[in-house]
Amino acid sequence: MGEYDLHHHGDREVEPGLADLAVNVRLPRPPEWLRRELASALDTLAAYPDPTAAAEAVAGRHGRAVAEVLVTAGAAEAFTLLASALRPEHAVVVHPQFTEPEAALRAAGHEVSRVVLSTSDGFTLRPEQVPASADLVYVGNPTNPTSVLHPASTLRALTRPGRLLVVDEAFLDAVPGETESLAGEPLPGVVVLRSLTKTWGLAGLRAGYLLGPPDVVARLRAVQPPWSVSTLAGVATVACCRPAAVEEAEKLAVAAESDREYLVSGLAALGFTTPGLAASDLTAPGLAALGPAVLGDPRGPFVLVRHPDPSLRARLRDAGYAVRRGDTFPGLGPEHFRLAVRAPEVTDGFLAALARLL
Amino acid sequence: MGEYDLHHHGDREVEPGLADLAVNVRLPRPPEWLRRELASALDTLAAYPDPTAAAEAVAGRHGRAVAEVLVTAGAAEAFTLLASALRPEHAVVVHPQFTEPEAALRAAGHEVSRVVLSTSDGFTLRPEQVPASADLVYVGNPTNPTSVLHPASTLRALTRPGRLLVVDEAFLDAVPGETESLAGEPLPGVVVLRSLTKTWGLAGLRAGYLLGPPDVVARLRAVQPPWSVSTLAGVATVACCRPAAVEEAEKLAVAAESDREYLVSGLAALGFTTPGLAASDLTAPGLAALGPAVLGDPRGPFVLVRHPDPSLRARLRDAGYAVRRGDTFPGLGPEHFRLAVRAPEVTDGFLAALARLL
Repeated sequence: MGEYDLHHHGDREVEPGLADLAVNVRLPRPPEWLRRELASALDTLAAYPDPTAAAEAVAGRHGRAVAEVLVTAGAAEAFTLLASALRPEHAVVVHPQFTEPEAALRAAGHEVSRVVLSTSDGFTLRPEQVPASADLVYVGNPTNPTSVLHPASTLRALTRPGRLLVVDEAFLDAVPGETESLAGEPLPGVVVLRSLTKTWGLAGLRAGYLLGPPDVVARLRAVQPPWSVSTLAGVATVACCRPAAVEEAEKLAVAAESDREYLVSGLAALGFTTPGLAASDLTAPGLAALGPAVLGDPRGPFVLVRHPDPSLRARLRDAGYAVRRGDTFPGLGPEHFRLAVRAPEVTDGFLAALARLL
Repeated sequence: MGEYDLHHHGDREVEPGLADLAVNVRLPRPPEWLRRELASALDTLAAYPDPTAAAEAVAGRHGRAVAEVLVTAGAAEAFTLLASALRPEHAVVVHPQFTEPEAALRAAGHEVSRVVLSTSDGFTLRPEQVPASADLVYVGNPTNPTSVLHPASTLRALTRPGRLLVVDEAFLDAVPGETESLAGEPLPGVVVLRSLTKTWGLAGLRAGYLLGPPDVVARLRAVQPPWSVSTLAGVATVACCRPAAVEEAEKLAVAAESDREYLVSGLAALGFTTPGLAASDLTAPGLAALGPAVLGDPRGPFVLVRHPDPSLRARLRDAGYAVRRGDTFPGLGPEHFRLAVRAPEVTDGFLAALARLL
């Protein structure tokens, strides 16, 4: 199980001078109104942080009780708290997905089983793929790196007494309408993780939160270091939960969707099969299984692609473009790359560079 | 062992309108040069944090190798990492001291023994008070809340093969010359914790670090959530490790020492015995054990006092002054209060209010 570098993340693939399609943060910096709020808060840093206002803001934004909210130092902290507070007998991580949940569980001494979804059916998750004995299950929605959005009904079907289902919704605010989110549903045995990082350009600030049953939240709070969430992360959380910010996020999500469609069309024009194109439509059917392809049905602000030439990533780097390697994700290999969705002008440059290399 | 509220901290005793002598942060806000650096860094928040530069700065400041440094989200995170990574058979916390080390150990499921130093000999620590079987020992230096500075020789005498000694030096940069610090000594089996919070007015930012043997640092790093230290905490760490900042901290430490002497003199004038005054000097010897007193030999930016009237804290609140209750610290009771050292004009007001209540 140690064959993948679970600690590898896209930020390691970025270097000065490279156009960054490796990291899934969408804004080049936080918006001006948010930077202004953070700058004002610098005067208040002498006081210890107090997450009360942030927790209330999150509760209000999702229609949940404050006792169902834990504000965290980014979603990453939530994975560590879960691993530290819980004593699962059978933890299952649905892959391919963000590798930190599994890394945190292993670092805390837990064994982890993997359910690996298949490329061939677009990473569709069927509830029966998860063993009945699993008492802790991690699913990403939309999933990083596949960009697949599982139906909320599939996730609800994964719940059962004695099981905790953790849904990583770190990218769900980038899906227009936040469809398939469970954040607003106080389901027993379901924990939802959220991040402010990707939409608001705040990866450096560490701001996120989780929603779940009050008893689970209390257990996680008991192992959270005191003052874990900085004053500035709290300020950002309050700001990004305001109706105007949620509305702005929705507009950004709609833009990201259109930018993603632009990228996928461009890839299709370069010979990548796309989810809309069934294998039977191809003149060479073998191509559907092995040829260049956009995988899954991308719904997030990134796209997982396959190209049979594993040297393509290095050649893209030489051409000035950093893309996220796929082979550190269980279930994927050196022929897989994740591409961040960027503005059309960046995508144009990337597609032109890719065309020269194919 | 659950009779003290180990999660109580001075920040809970502060309210708008009260003069704050409860929290041990010395500046009302970070200095202007530091706020300016933090403000510039707001533009870089979209990138994931990278602690490399901060670790190098810390290594340079203390003359240690980079592999001996772990940058943490405040010293509080270090206690959680230690509790999570270590598997002590006999953990010992020397009290009275900051309660988070014990709280973190207990939250992680470890049992903790207490060595409680005595008020009667000024909280002097003798190495033989710590059981030989202890394989994990926590000492604060200078100790919060007693303000006692243990000699480095005493701490070195506590080391032995198979034991990890954790020295919390969160307040040591407030001691002129940083005497008795072990931060610059790569001793086997010794971990030193530092905080930027108190001297630089950064409690809200969560910035600190730990120095220790490379193998211990590696074990702690393995359980640290990824990107745990925010970009701004990293920027602050680099800034506060520069020679000019270290020099400024030294000046602040000298000022704090003089401000503390001013406070202690004022308390003596109000009838509190002080460490310089032996019990035999008193006309009523019983007073030395029970009467108003400044306890220990204060060397940090706060002072532990005793007053036989436990209602004094509430009456000080009514008079507009928040002081830190002592009864949440193992070994202390309702007759103990911790006073933060403030500028003479604040101290004057406090002493005048106190005089009216005595």
